[in-house]
Amino acid sequence: MRILGIDPGYALIGFGLVEAERGQARMLTYGTVKTPAGEPLSKRLYQISLDMEQLFTVLKPDVISVEELFFRNNLKTGIAVAHGRGVILCAAEKSHIPLFEYTPSQVKISVTGYGRAGKRQVMDMTRRLLRLQAIPRPDDAADALALALCHARSATSRIPKTARIRETI
Amino acid sequence: MRILGIDPGYALIGFGLVEAERGQARMLTYGTVKTPAGEPLSKRLYQISLDMEQLFTVLKPDVISVEELFFRNNLKTGIAVAHGRGVILCAAEKSHIPLFEYTPSQVKISVTGYGRAGKRQVMDMTRRLLRLQAIPRPDDAADALALALCHARSATSRIPKTARIRETI
Repeated sequence: MRILGIDPGYALIGFGLVEAERGQARMLTYGTVKTPAGEPLSKRLYQISLDMEQLFTVLKPDVISVEELFFRNNLKTGIAVAHGRGVILCAAEKSHIPLFEYTPSQVKISVTGYGRAGKRQVMDMTRRLLRLQAIPRPDDAADALALALCHARSATSRIPKTARIRETI
Repeated sequence: MRILGIDPGYALIGFGLVEAERGQARMLTYGTVKTPAGEPLSKRLYQISLDMEQLFTVLKPDVISVEELFFRNNLKTGIAVAHGRGVILCAAEKSHIPLFEYTPSQVKISVTGYGRAGKRQVMDMTRRLLRLQAIPRPDDAADALALALCHARSATSRIPKTARIRETI
């Protein structure tokens, strides 16, 4: 199963493709999609929709694993990220790709076994589980790989039931 | 000039089309676009993108006037509305229709002359300015007509400079 993890945004979107088979996960590719700063938000959103459709066509994921949105610090940035995430979900639906959402703590539990693990800890465990030499750069791509891994491990029932996957509401 | 006002959302989207000519505005049509409750958010967003594209094709607006998003009470609803608004802005961009954003207080100033006017006051002035028999229903459609009117009046310099239009950031 090809799982595409997506770390949503409007300026920088991380993606990471993982092949999961018989409880083993292997990294296939990762990267980021950028939109030009200074352009109107509507132009950036349209660019995201085109880029996502192209990404789905090229990478041929069986499922998409995307982070649930929580607003922590900056509400204004959060609103813009939610705009971008809306376009990403829309593109996934248009491409008929099943979509799963995970909270940051579900990802942490799945990857490190601990729901309050630090960012660095999650990244290092992602690196180990995918048997990579170094933590992928930038952070957005590493986060996306962790999301893909989270779905791979959820699908094979390795994480506690309380932290199980649930379909997009 | 045909101005399409849009009151963004993910469950119910209001729209109102106004023809503005020589300082006069005339209502052409208004209504709402609904998405089915209980469906996954991604399906509802994709439905919105299709409905918006169809709406733009049928109504042929020269410009779109859309409300800026502020989170007041419910953060969870606000995030979902921002997802829907992202898809609406994306559809406008795809259709090459110029987009203008107004804050609720800009709409109030433009329509009633008072930035803290009540909702009912704005709706009643919208009705009068468009010479309608009754306030359009539901509220989402009336809000959309107020947005269209706000752009019509901004474009003819009737509102204070401080409350002038600005392009989508």
